[in-house]
Order: sequence, then structure tokens, then C-alpha cells
Amino acid sequence: MYQLTYLLYKHQWHIPPSMKVTMEVNNRYITIKTHIEGAPKESDFELKNAALALSIEAGSNDLIVKTLYVSIDPYQINRMKSYSSSRKATVAAAPITPGEAIDGYGVAKIVVSGNPEFQKDELVVGFVGWGEYKLVKGGDRLRKLDPMGFPLSHHTGIFGYGGLTAYSGFFEICKPRKGEKVFVSGASGSVGNLVGQFAKLFGCYVVGSVGNNKKVAVLKEKLGFDDAFNYKEEPDLKATLRRYFPDGIDVYFDNVGGDMLEAAVANMNLFGRVAACGAISEYTNASKRASPNMLDVVYKRIKIQGFLVSDHINLYADFVSTIGDHLRNGKIQPLEDISNGVESIPSAFIGLFQGDNIGKKIVCVAED
Amino acid sequence: MYQLTYLLYKHQWHIPPSMKVTMEVNNRYITIKTHIEGAPKESDFELKNAALALSIEAGSNDLIVKTLYVSIDPYQINRMKSYSSSRKATVAAAPITPGEAIDGYGVAKIVVSGNPEFQKDELVVGFVGWGEYKLVKGGDRLRKLDPMGFPLSHHTGIFGYGGLTAYSGFFEICKPRKGEKVFVSGASGSVGNLVGQFAKLFGCYVVGSVGNNKKVAVLKEKLGFDDAFNYKEEPDLKATLRRYFPDGIDVYFDNVGGDMLEAAVANMNLFGRVAACGAISEYTNASKRASPNMLDVVYKRIKIQGFLVSDHINLYADFVSTIGDHLRNGKIQPLEDISNGVESIPSAFIGLFQGDNIGKKIVCVAED
Repeated sequence: MYQLTYLLYKHQWHIPPSMKVTMEVNNRYITIKTHIEGAPKESDFELKNAALALSIEAGSNDLIVKTLYVSIDPYQINRMKSYSSSRKATVAAAPITPGEAIDGYGVAKIVVSGNPEFQKDELVVGFVGWGEYKLVKGGDRLRKLDPMGFPLSHHTGIFGYGGLTAYSGFFEICKPRKGEKVFVSGASGSVGNLVGQFAKLFGCYVVGSVGNNKKVAVLKEKLGFDDAFNYKEEPDLKATLRRYFPDGIDVYFDNVGGDMLEAAVANMNLFGRVAACGAISEYTNASKRASPNMLDVVYKRIKIQGFLVSDHINLYADFVSTIGDHLRNGKIQPLEDISNGVESIPSAFIGLFQGDNIGKKIVCVAED
Repeated sequence: MYQLTYLLYKHQWHIPPSMKVTMEVNNRYITIKTHIEGAPKESDFELKNAALALSIEAGSNDLIVKTLYVSIDPYQINRMKSYSSSRKATVAAAPITPGEAIDGYGVAKIVVSGNPEFQKDELVVGFVGWGEYKLVKGGDRLRKLDPMGFPLSHHTGIFGYGGLTAYSGFFEICKPRKGEKVFVSGASGSVGNLVGQFAKLFGCYVVGSVGNNKKVAVLKEKLGFDDAFNYKEEPDLKATLRRYFPDGIDVYFDNVGGDMLEAAVANMNLFGRVAACGAISEYTNASKRASPNMLDVVYKRIKIQGFLVSDHINLYADFVSTIGDHLRNGKIQPLEDISNGVESIPSAFIGLFQGDNIGKKIVCVAED
């Protein structure tokens, strides 16, 4: 039927109304109603329905894909704000326009291909969307996926940007040495849980901070962290970190910013390194800013280095090979938190900022 | 006479009181009365008088030196506090005890030597003191000085730690590229004025911030900065920096911390580098903390790197040779602000925090 649409389009034949119905799908997708300031809430989002013609322009290289798994990531909130510095900074952080479809990383299946490099029913990974279907212009930012025997969800999470962020951030930015003391905040999140596991495998001492006791147990019992604590039960984070790191912190992998960054800097050793990966505590509350003591930064020669995974794509092949081996050998545990259905995307996203997820948050939009 | 003292000491001969007078000097030196919190003031300091026997222990390698020029540096305030993180961090930042003599970098002349490597009347440079004379145990942290035809004050300032701080911080920490946009705060200070001059010579565009209009004129007219501004006349530093750097800042050499660091981070370009050299605005006011926007740090991949000159001593020979050439060729202007007499040390030091000095603050304790 898709080929027919294409032929009809190409030759500009008249399409009788009765045929048109069969050449469309009903596409349900998520939008924001307005720009979001502060924490996101259900009423900020709308589930829209729209007919999507399963046809592509001749010679366009466009694809129509069906979303299977989509990654739910905190950074998207910065794209939903009316203004953010992130907008100027990166393509990945391009603004999201209210009412329009939202793009996001995930795994999809090709429904219609006008691109000679892709065939119908092939799996792809890359920037799909927060919806059931998407017309992908020129096949941009998608590549063919070989699942390598792993579940498709893994290709949204651990083999995706979250995994590469953890890998590149820990090894390239933190430049760890065996035996060093590593602190990870947001340690049960998509990136943090892997940083901790990488650090342990590499021979570091690792402590993670999380927001509830169930997560503490997962880190210690399932993922092999040396220790973990629930920051919500700790009134004085500087004292807490002094307790968990009596010999100081060498590497801090920061996913949260705010008070935790200050406390970590106060407890760092000489030549300590901070990988500034994210600042979720500041995303939804601009007044909550970290004020690290600059005297500590100077005297202890601390490096605070912001980074984005997009600068480390060159590591991807190494990364996939390494992680694949570790997963097969059981040396790394995948930690995924999967919801089902396109309609669950807003609550999955909102939950990130409430600490609901344990591990990589993924929505399964369709099984296949 | 010194040799006689030595012999008397060695053989434990009785020294008649009448001789003793000639074997002592009256040493005037500065102490702090108590630990200092906040900005230093005259009443925090005391000029003490004490007889200093011009004799040294046999076989001790000790020296007695006469201070000629002493460097007056903001970091000393951190050593005068009752507690500071700097204490744990470096030898150079070891605490200063109330009532005791204060050590500081400078040029001195040897008065008595018990060290075969040093001769009487030789010039030395290194850690002398805030006083007229000093007994230097083992000759520690002193080395012979070849003035190379330059004034002795230059060896306290531009050829001293201030110069090497500027050189190593700019070239090693900032890793500048020709044509980059460089912002320097505290730009008429001992380090800042040189950073700006190095950056200009290297081919960067350089703007400096200072605390009065006379300093603005010095930077622009004498030192060749592309531009300069008086931060005290700028109510909105973010807007000010946007005006001076319409294309953004690539390198920020931070001597002040606080609001200026925040404003610089907000105006930085992708992959911007901050050399955190000092935070004078925070030294005397612990509540004045910089809160750089971590979203900027992450998305713009900004690096904030604390450093101390003591980690870059390996560059010293290169540095001296380069700066010597530049001074001889008139490519670098020395900027010195010299007071006279040991009694002027407290006001010279206090003045650092009031922005009194233009250039490297030095006290000439004795001409020779």
C-alpha cells in the first residue's frame, strides 16, 4: 500500500477519497501546551491525535518510522523552557515548541522508506519522537540498529546516550586512577548507576547518593557500590560526605548540582575532578544554584568540567564493544525502569524530577 | 664579628655583656595580634622590636638575612584566618600564628652564613619575611639571585611567583589560541596585568576589569589592553561583559571570584576555560560566593580549573628567559607599586583589599 501511495504521489495521479483512509495512520503524540517553568506537571502536556499520511516525497530520502522504545531524559526540561542558555549551545538542546511533536532518542521500525539506505521493517536507533509515528526528513539522526542479541530497551538506554555519557564522562573527563575515591550523585539514574558500576569495575571505591532507601539497597545489593546514602535523610551534606569519605573525594560525577556540588567540593582532595554532567536540582528551580567555595577550587586545584556526550561520539564503537562484553559476562547490570504506552510519557518524564525512576527511564510505545 | 660570635658559641666561652651589643641587631617585624576574619585593618597588626643575635648554630646550614624587598600578596589573608581550607592544602598556605614573624616572598642579602653554599653579602630570593631580618633555618626556600641587570624589585614581582602564576596560569591552564577573547579580572594586580600583557603578545583580544578609572587608563594606555572597565561603575556585570564581548569570552582568568565569575560564565563561549587563580572578593567575605550557572557549565562544556603556581615550578627557567627578553625589548611593561619601610607593610597589605595598588605591591624594607 505504501508503494502505491508513492506511485500515486510520483505520478500525481488523482487519489479517490475512499483510498486515502487506508494510507494514513492515527498518530498519537505528546506535546507541551506552553513553555514550562519549574517542575513539569501533567497539565503541561497534551496527548494529540493526528492522521499521518504514510507517504513520502519522491527523492526526499525521508522515512516514516514507528516508535518502539523511547528514552525519557531530564535534559529535555531545558528544551521546554521559554529561554535557556542551552538553546544557544547545542543542537540536541534545540528548543521544543508548544503544540509541536517532541523529538527524543529511541528505537523504531521503518514503516515507509524513501531512502535507499533503509528498508521497510528494519530497526533504527536515534532521534525518534514522543509519539507513535514520525516522519523523519532525510532519515536524519537515525542509523540502522543491530540489536546484537540484547533487548531493544538496552539500545535506548545502556547502549544509548545515557551509557555513552557515563562511559565518556567517567573515563575521559574524570580520568580516574585505580583506588581513587569516587562519589556519584543521582546514582540510581540512567547515567549515575553506570558511572558507579564502571568505577567499581575499574578498581575505585564508590559511594552513591540517591533519594530513597529502596534505591540505596539497589546500589549496594544489586550494583555493587561500596556504599550509598539517601540524601533526603541527611541534613548536613558536607558532614555526610566527610563520613562516607574520611580520606576525601578524588572524583565527583555530578548529576544534580546545587548543595551536593558544594558539599562535594568541600570534601575533595587535592587535584580532585568534577565531571559536571547535569544539574537536575537546578533544572526546575533556577534559584537553586551551587556556590562551590572558590578557595577550595583554587587551593585544592580542583577541576570542574562540563561536558556533553555529543563531543565523545568517537568513543562509541569502543564503548559498545566493552559494554556488550560486560553485559554478557554479568559484570554490568542493566538497570531499566520501563512504562508502557505513548500516553505514559508525560508521567514518566514528570517522575524523573520526583525521583520515581530506578535506573534508566524508558517508555515502550509499541512492542514491534 | 660574626665569626667571633660563632667561635664564642662553639667553644661556649663567656661573652662579656659589653660585646653582646655589637653582635645583635634590632629587628623590627610585623605580626598579627589575633587571627583575622573579614577585611584586614591596621589594628590587626603590630610592629614588634626584638634583638636578633647575629649568630648561627654550628653545622646548622642556617642563614641570617636582611630583607630588601618583600612581596605583598592577597593570599596571605587566608593564612591569617582562624581556619581555612587552604591550611590543609599547601605548604605556602601554612597558617600564620598571632604574635609570630610572618614569612613572605622577597629579596634579601645574606648577613651571616653558616651554609657553605651561601656567602655573606650575596643576594638571595625566596621566602624571607615581613621584617628587617630573618634567621632562615637551613637556608630553606631560598636560592641565590642573579639580578641579570634588572632592579631587585623585579625579582620580587615580575620574576617572582606573581609572574610565574600569570605565565603558567595563562599558558598551561587556559591553553589559549591566537585570536581568542580573553577576560581578566583584577587586571591591574600583580598577576592580572601580566596575564593581559601575555595574552596581547600571544595574539588574543583582551579586556580587563579593575576598580577605578585610573587603573582603566593604565591598562589601555600603558599596557596595551584592547579595553578595560571599572566594575564599580557597572551595576549589571552580565550586561557589561555582553557589551565588551559581543562574541563571547573564550578564556576567563579569574582573580576575584564572586559575581564576576558568575557573569563571566554566563558570557562564555563553548569550550570556554576559566583559570581560577584567586577569589579576592571572597577572601574577606565568606558569604560572597560565586554561583556560576551549572547549566552553562554543562551545555557550554566550560572548564573551571583551580591552580597554584607551586605546581608549575618546572616552567621557571623558560619563564625567566622569556620575560627577561620581553622586558629588555620593551614588549612587557613592569607594573610595580612600591612602599618603603617595614612599618608600611600593614597598610600595603590592607590596601590590596581596598584596591589601592596599581600593579605588583612591593615593600622596600631596605635599599641594600
